[in-house]
Amino acid sequence: MPVPPGLLTLLREECGIDGSIVSRAPLLSDVRMPDCSLPSELRSALVEICGSLNVRSDEEERIRHAGGRSYLDLLRLRSATLDAAPDAVVHPANHAEVAAVIAACAAAGCAVVPFGGGTSVVGGVTTPLRSPCVAVDTDRLDALTNFDSTSLLATLGAGMRGPRIEAELNARGVTLGHFPQSFEYATAGGFAATRSAGQASAGYGRFDAMVRGLTMASPAGECNVRAEPPSATGPSLLQMLVGSEGALGLITGVTVRVRPDPAARRYAGWSFPIFEEGAAAFRELAQHQHLPDVARLSDADETRAGFAMSESGMTRFALRYLEARGQPRPCLAILGWEGSTHDIGARMHSAGPMLRRHGAISLGTSPGRSWLRDRFAAPYLRDALLDRGVLVETLETGATWSRLDELRNAVTSALLFALRRHGTWPLVGCHVSHLYPEGASLYFTILAPQAPDPVSQWHDAKRAATDAIVDYGGVLSHHHGIGRDHAAWLPLARGESAMSCLRALKRELDPAAIMNPGALVST
Amino acid sequence: MPVPPGLLTLLREECGIDGSIVSRAPLLSDVRMPDCSLPSELRSALVEICGSLNVRSDEEERIRHAGGRSYLDLLRLRSATLDAAPDAVVHPANHAEVAAVIAACAAAGCAVVPFGGGTSVVGGVTTPLRSPCVAVDTDRLDALTNFDSTSLLATLGAGMRGPRIEAELNARGVTLGHFPQSFEYATAGGFAATRSAGQASAGYGRFDAMVRGLTMASPAGECNVRAEPPSATGPSLLQMLVGSEGALGLITGVTVRVRPDPAARRYAGWSFPIFEEGAAAFRELAQHQHLPDVARLSDADETRAGFAMSESGMTRFALRYLEARGQPRPCLAILGWEGSTHDIGARMHSAGPMLRRHGAISLGTSPGRSWLRDRFAAPYLRDALLDRGVLVETLETGATWSRLDELRNAVTSALLFALRRHGTWPLVGCHVSHLYPEGASLYFTILAPQAPDPVSQWHDAKRAATDAIVDYGGVLSHHHGIGRDHAAWLPLARGESAMSCLRALKRELDPAAIMNPGALVST
Repeated sequence: MPVPPGLLTLLREECGIDGSIVSRAPLLSDVRMPDCSLPSELRSALVEICGSLNVRSDEEERIRHAGGRSYLDLLRLRSATLDAAPDAVVHPANHAEVAAVIAACAAAGCAVVPFGGGTSVVGGVTTPLRSPCVAVDTDRLDALTNFDSTSLLATLGAGMRGPRIEAELNARGVTLGHFPQSFEYATAGGFAATRSAGQASAGYGRFDAMVRGLTMASPAGECNVRAEPPSATGPSLLQMLVGSEGALGLITGVTVRVRPDPAARRYAGWSFPIFEEGAAAFRELAQHQHLPDVARLSDADETRAGFAMSESGMTRFALRYLEARGQPRPCLAILGWEGSTHDIGARMHSAGPMLRRHGAISLGTSPGRSWLRDRFAAPYLRDALLDRGVLVETLETGATWSRLDELRNAVTSALLFALRRHGTWPLVGCHVSHLYPEGASLYFTILAPQAPDPVSQWHDAKRAATDAIVDYGGVLSHHHGIGRDHAAWLPLARGESAMSCLRALKRELDPAAIMNPGALVST
Repeated sequence: MPVPPGLLTLLREECGIDGSIVSRAPLLSDVRMPDCSLPSELRSALVEICGSLNVRSDEEERIRHAGGRSYLDLLRLRSATLDAAPDAVVHPANHAEVAAVIAACAAAGCAVVPFGGGTSVVGGVTTPLRSPCVAVDTDRLDALTNFDSTSLLATLGAGMRGPRIEAELNARGVTLGHFPQSFEYATAGGFAATRSAGQASAGYGRFDAMVRGLTMASPAGECNVRAEPPSATGPSLLQMLVGSEGALGLITGVTVRVRPDPAARRYAGWSFPIFEEGAAAFRELAQHQHLPDVARLSDADETRAGFAMSESGMTRFALRYLEARGQPRPCLAILGWEGSTHDIGARMHSAGPMLRRHGAISLGTSPGRSWLRDRFAAPYLRDALLDRGVLVETLETGATWSRLDELRNAVTSALLFALRRHGTWPLVGCHVSHLYPEGASLYFTILAPQAPDPVSQWHDAKRAATDAIVDYGGVLSHHHGIGRDHAAWLPLARGESAMSCLRALKRELDPAAIMNPGALVST
């Protein structure tokens, strides 16, 4: 994907990046990795279970399953030398095969990394430095296995990717409404394993609220939560397994709430004079039950970068118009409503005055339409930017409304300070999205020239940002998950009691600690 | 509380109950119980922690804490002979005292029963047959300790009862909106411990959705979940502790979402020709985001009993009117909206056509007003009915919409069959309430003449109903909880994997199994 010229200009002017290509991702055939060391008895057992075509140890398959899409994963791949790669990649066809694979691995003391879309940006599927290790790819668990049109519940195979989920559901007149940026590749099982939140979470809910039942294969056996309405039958097993990131077992299927496909969608842009006013308006929408289905508010820097990237005549006109209306550093908000035309009209009508009271100026539907068009595009820019020597990273947190401003300032300052110490001048943008009555998430995008040692540069910036998140009362992750990148901070963020409960569950379900070692629970 | 004459007529005509008083609750001074057997070192330790006035072993205190308000609890008390009562009732003043009390009990191997409002109807606070045993009453943990007006979060002491919670919040311009039938006595800690659902759950959410943070004192130490927005930081500790019914520890405080106090309330009555049409209309409201804040639909038998109890000229007129309009066996629905006048109008306007399409006839606001007035009254009738030899019991479940009709029929038949086998002719009414996109709860009210052995009569009916619930895919409890009455069925309802996770948590937090023995996890 080409880098938009406006973005290159911005990177040149503000970060001193000249935009020339300084490196390329290596050819897969040039990537080196440790030799495959799968014990032959285990290989035979896996072949017995899944068939020889579904137990692969070719280099391409091992490389493609050695990590996800975290910045460190990308750097590792670009170094053309992998410290670790799975000894085999197994593709079981159903829950029974997954269970048998896990049992065989448990018997052999072999680590298991559950692998869905491979889109983790926090090291959730990076092969641990532990041998033997197999990746279990859920790509063959790709069928909608049950549809209850009365209760509006659908049971999805763990390996179904976003577009396939929507295609199957749309054919039945319904939608899941779960659209994270990873939508095109990420899977139903991954959504559940990571407590994913989609861009329309304000309207359709987070995945942990959508999911009503699941099946998991763990070394201790099957965990089965039947889909039913909320109840008072003790602590929630469902909520113990959702978010377990493969560390307790492999989720093989989920039953989710679906909704009638909306008759209409209306996405609109609004501009706020300052971020704090926009956040106050969003808080009011969330606390008075007037939330649109999608709501996101960019700070002035993210807005500026966004306008630079689109660089159309329309954009220049909008900027002049906003300046004339007293918004020289506008903060763009995208609000989206879905449903019946009548309901959308009524809801927009209720939200309008709240937005205007905080100084918002309507920009019509054009910014909303472009956002909808491009909403899965950003990740595709990463390789093109890496080619140009750009550190490109995102991270996110969330907090109660009363902590949100301080947290945003603290994380931004920490990032700027850490990156400048490496002699690099960064651009840090932020947006608020995923609104709740008590708070919201903050999502940061970071662009900077790569330092000579990009791994330490990243570690320093990540440490500074994550320390600030923990110190200022943010959640360690709002929707990316813990993976390996955040695992060291989990005890600080959640406290010792949470960790001891989590370890108790891990001992119960995965007594030999073979499941996704190093993810979620740091070893 | 006097029994309404219309209800006495109904009981005479349909159940053969003549209405004369056949027994009375005994005077507290006539109740016998085992002698107090608290080890003196433990008593000294408790006195040291809480002060001598707050460690009580007088008979009245022991009797009042020997059980809650389950049918078996009431029968036991009426028998004037208690098998068990706590050896002492302790009233700690704060979290630190609760933690010290639990540590002292753990050291002495003494069982601990957390005691809030004492309103459990499922044996959640019944003294176990295990000595020594102390009840820990949370009545002194009764302060609102933090109020974040920006994030709309309030931190409530576990012992705050419903009216006090609302008074403190209303004084700050907000409401919790949690109104279970036990509202007048039940406590914040009890709401969290039992996953309570209030009558306005459709609008304000269940308590397990309202609660965002909590502190618990467990034998293993403090569990602390800070209030924050939903996140992707691993499995939910909060949802492991909510619903733990005192079996993992004692919840000392909760932080809950609150809402701006609604400017207006509008409650209306509608009548459906048959229950199934009403349920279909309710499903449509729930699945199209048109739920009122309160929604309940009585079946024809419950409607008939309700009309008999009110017995006004208005009621007789309404019945004749409905018969003339083709509803000889009407099913009454109560729908309530809360919020701004404008929002209420818009939401009622959207719901109306959906209701009418299913044959509903509007009865105006008068049935809504009487329901609001009487909504906490039913429990007060129980003693008056027991005096007249009436078995009076309620039980509830929930299921997906596709299972709801079959489940209702199965439970009703099981109850009728079991009670008729005892030679008693019962009245069984049912209503649907607590609506979700995927399902709803069913609440049954049972009235019958007491058999000569009322304990076996109850056990037989309870067993029949609960077996039917499990067989027909209902949840074991939608909002009453598990307590001791349902504990034997929990493994059947939730499955072995859920039980092993629950037991792992119990071993971690309560290794000596002193916390509320017999509740939730049957021993």
